[in-house]
Amino acid sequence: METKKTGLFLLILLIITLPLIFCSSVPTQNKDQMVRLAKIVIDSSQLESYKAALKEEIEASVRLEPGVLTLYAVSEKNNPTHITILEIYADSVAYKSHIQTPHFLKYKNGTKEMVTALELVEAVPLVPGMKIK
Amino acid sequence: METKKTGLFLLILLIITLPLIFCSSVPTQNKDQMVRLAKIVIDSSQLESYKAALKEEIEASVRLEPGVLTLYAVSEKNNPTHITILEIYADSVAYKSHIQTPHFLKYKNGTKEMVTALELVEAVPLVPGMKIK
Repeated sequence: METKKTGLFLLILLIITLPLIFCSSVPTQNKDQMVRLAKIVIDSSQLESYKAALKEEIEASVRLEPGVLTLYAVSEKNNPTHITILEIYADSVAYKSHIQTPHFLKYKNGTKEMVTALELVEAVPLVPGMKIK
Repeated sequence: METKKTGLFLLILLIITLPLIFCSSVPTQNKDQMVRLAKIVIDSSQLESYKAALKEEIEASVRLEPGVLTLYAVSEKNNPTHITILEIYADSVAYKSHIQTPHFLKYKNGTKEMVTALELVEAVPLVPGMKIK
């Protein structure tokens, strides 16, 4: 009976701790992160094509590349041809690998006639490791 | 014996499903989200004080307010007095509640002499529900 009780106790302990084991996100090595704002202006007649191409590229990058931590793109409500992307890479190696992927090259080559201005601004996060709930 | 086996089966089922129940993030109601870029310029002589106040406000907001989904603030590497914040709120109710919190009011009142320019740009996310890994 004692053994059964111990077994049950261990099982309950397992039930309680399992979610913690599975849910705990591995701490990101923030110090190596590369954070950037891409400020892009698009030819208004090609805006929808551009947005479709960017969306495809972002979804592929985030899905396929563990080192692409986010590509959060927005267009300004009152100025929809103005796009800003918050880009976060795990490190510069992840970034260098990203710009050689087929999905990035397809986007880059496919949209170069649509982009009228591009500014890449290296940035420093105020709260490294900040997430989106 | 049969009852015991059924009990054990249910217990094992519980162990397997518990992480799913606890880990599955409740799908965010993206359609109501309020997304904004705050573009801020700070008086250079007060930059460190400003950054400390903003950091305190961001950390309190994200910790205490479920409807503040992120406040991702960066300063430009080559222009550190230029701050951009990607703000995501669950909805406009969450935003209205946010700007009445003691921590927001402390930040707002405490930094108004430090801010030389402030532009609040309403934005539309290209990939709603995008996260940071």
